[in-house]
Amino acid sequence: VTVFLVGAGPGDPELISVRGARLLGSADVVLHDSLARPLVALARPGAEILDVGKSPGSTPVPQSQINRLLVEHGRRSQRVVRLKGGDPFVFARGAEEVRALQAAGIENSVVPGISAALAGPTSAGVPLTLRGLARAFTVLTGHEDPANWSSGYAGALVALRGTIVVMMGTTYIRQIARRLMDAGLSPDTPVAAVRAATTRTEEICRSTLAGIDDVVLPSPLLFVIGGVAGIDLRPLAPNNNACPQW
Amino acid sequence: VTVFLVGAGPGDPELISVRGARLLGSADVVLHDSLARPLVALARPGAEILDVGKSPGSTPVPQSQINRLLVEHGRRSQRVVRLKGGDPFVFARGAEEVRALQAAGIENSVVPGISAALAGPTSAGVPLTLRGLARAFTVLTGHEDPANWSSGYAGALVALRGTIVVMMGTTYIRQIARRLMDAGLSPDTPVAAVRAATTRTEEICRSTLAGIDDVVLPSPLLFVIGGVAGIDLRPLAPNNNACPQW
Repeated sequence: VTVFLVGAGPGDPELISVRGARLLGSADVVLHDSLARPLVALARPGAEILDVGKSPGSTPVPQSQINRLLVEHGRRSQRVVRLKGGDPFVFARGAEEVRALQAAGIENSVVPGISAALAGPTSAGVPLTLRGLARAFTVLTGHEDPANWSSGYAGALVALRGTIVVMMGTTYIRQIARRLMDAGLSPDTPVAAVRAATTRTEEICRSTLAGIDDVVLPSPLLFVIGGVAGIDLRPLAPNNNACPQW
Repeated sequence: VTVFLVGAGPGDPELISVRGARLLGSADVVLHDSLARPLVALARPGAEILDVGKSPGSTPVPQSQINRLLVEHGRRSQRVVRLKGGDPFVFARGAEEVRALQAAGIENSVVPGISAALAGPTSAGVPLTLRGLARAFTVLTGHEDPANWSSGYAGALVALRGTIVVMMGTTYIRQIARRLMDAGLSPDTPVAAVRAATTRTEEICRSTLAGIDDVVLPSPLLFVIGGVAGIDLRPLAPNNNACPQW
């Protein structure tokens, strides 16, 4: 195998897998996302490091170019690690990268990571599932405008009565909350908002579906919606850290 | 902190987090599930190891007794690791254990792990999300009889048009598939079945919703249902490994 797609985990460098850390430590070339930047410290001295992530103010590297870089380095190098925030197969376009490598005949392997969809709720002291309260959870991206949801979509999310996790929720969370309330989810439904889970800039606050409208936190922002978000299992159990409002 | 709930990951000992491995290596006492048994090799020599998992043929340790053991050892020991297969907050009763510790005034912390809900699909070469094909995924447990689903539940799962992951699906997968087809999901919908993902006994096979009825694989068994399950991104891309039938 020459190219490894490695899930870097949610942000805390200690939350990468043992395998991911080992591969990273022996890579000749590392191509990483913005969210995976703190993990680059685990690469060996002398490794070539390429930042292909989105940075505020700079032009994002198009996916096609990332694919091309992976193929080029996969042809030239002994061991390439493509380090992706979270898990490579959860809203991360990992499948597109694997396909590009396969099309070029380059051996590859995928190492899963702890998605923020799991680590975010844990940081907030929120269990994704709980007997009697949530027997399923649904993870969706807040990068898509819910105006494009089919007519039954919001109703279906509500009918599952499970936990709803909205990743990358900054842009459309207000519209998503509105659609869920219109579909019958109570405005009092608990919500936990988690910014930059497990990193040094982590922030956590609590609100309700009706109150989500006014939550002011910078990106990246994940929302947990449902009865479980009313629970706080953190050691100090602050439980009263209301979200900052406009 | 004296008691750490640590997600052991899906089975492969290298898929635990770096932090989890570090805590495990310095624990005085380790209480572990069956699925986390291979990880016990990471504990330090001399650590007390307690298997509180379900074993075929033996009486399962009741959750209340696990809670009691955690509290007792948390009072006596410097560092206790409660090692749980997958992630502590995904169908793992981690919340109940944290509550028991909190009620007893014992400091604790939760370290997330890679859930089989993520690693299972990756093992099968299936991306959970893919632009144009699956913009969300729902994870549910197959331990609950779908005869108890509310009338709109199956329809809601279908209406989301996302990936459906059924964990611990051995017992009820036939009934779940039937309910989904009755709710309008095409019998031709691709299905990937993954047994014991990332372990030495891992088995992967492919079928359809209509064909799921006949899948014969031993537990623990996870199913991925949806368009993405028709994709196979594994290096060797066998893609034709049909599930063994009755």
